[in-house]
Amino acid sequence: MFRKILYPTDFSDVAEKALNYVKQLKEAGSQEVIILHVVNQRIIDGLLRHGMLEKDIEGWRTKAKEVGHEAVAEMRRELESSGFTVQTVIKTGYPADVILDMEKREAPSLIVIGSHGRTNLSDMFLGSVSQRVIRKCKAPVMVVKRDPKA
Amino acid sequence: MFRKILYPTDFSDVAEKALNYVKQLKEAGSQEVIILHVVNQRIIDGLLRHGMLEKDIEGWRTKAKEVGHEAVAEMRRELESSGFTVQTVIKTGYPADVILDMEKREAPSLIVIGSHGRTNLSDMFLGSVSQRVIRKCKAPVMVVKRDPKA
Repeated sequence: MFRKILYPTDFSDVAEKALNYVKQLKEAGSQEVIILHVVNQRIIDGLLRHGMLEKDIEGWRTKAKEVGHEAVAEMRRELESSGFTVQTVIKTGYPADVILDMEKREAPSLIVIGSHGRTNLSDMFLGSVSQRVIRKCKAPVMVVKRDPKA
Repeated sequence: MFRKILYPTDFSDVAEKALNYVKQLKEAGSQEVIILHVVNQRIIDGLLRHGMLEKDIEGWRTKAKEVGHEAVAEMRRELESSGFTVQTVIKTGYPADVILDMEKREAPSLIVIGSHGRTNLSDMFLGSVSQRVIRKCKAPVMVVKRDPKA
């Protein structure tokens, strides 16, 4: 029922908080975690619109992927030491689309997602990515809410 | 982390499906379940608008509560036999408001809810009650999606 978890992360605080829930589901039969990090195409679109050169953007994208790889490798170690089988995926694209596409291909038992990403901290209730994923996904989804602002 | 679960139900198929997830969380440390059934004030408002008499509505409400009590008693037995401590609550009101109010008072570790209720089967992606609860609640919420239509 919770065997295979899809855990999308943009390394925000709330995504980290969500990871704790993933870990806790081990006891309820969770065995496998797919850590998915999306390098946000929307940022690339923005850079292009602001006149940044393709080659500089490619440099940024490479850097973003490197940072991503390090961060997911750290999570992988953590989850593996708790006994999970882990798959890590880093992709460039529009986050909700990539997440939903991954759901289609991997058919996870559950998606665990933070309510807000790093790029929509100002949204009051629910970020646009998680909102779209909740609406469109087929698997049950656990939404971990942002802590109330200090 | 999953100690106390708030489980709102309108006895729809998808709410029943959600109950299976509640049960599975026992292994991950869940101990207590609050089963909450709301007699929908919106239906009463509708009956009033259509000219039904207050005393007939009161009869309907009493009947709806009775049916509710039987259904939650059945769930209570089921959950208790799995080792949960169970609290059952039946209230009249606007479902999302009652659920959010209950969250405020009980501070559950998790809300487990179906994506659609019985009164919004036509909504394509997400029913209005679950949508409002997801947006406004503070606790993590597990949304169990409706099975695709046959």
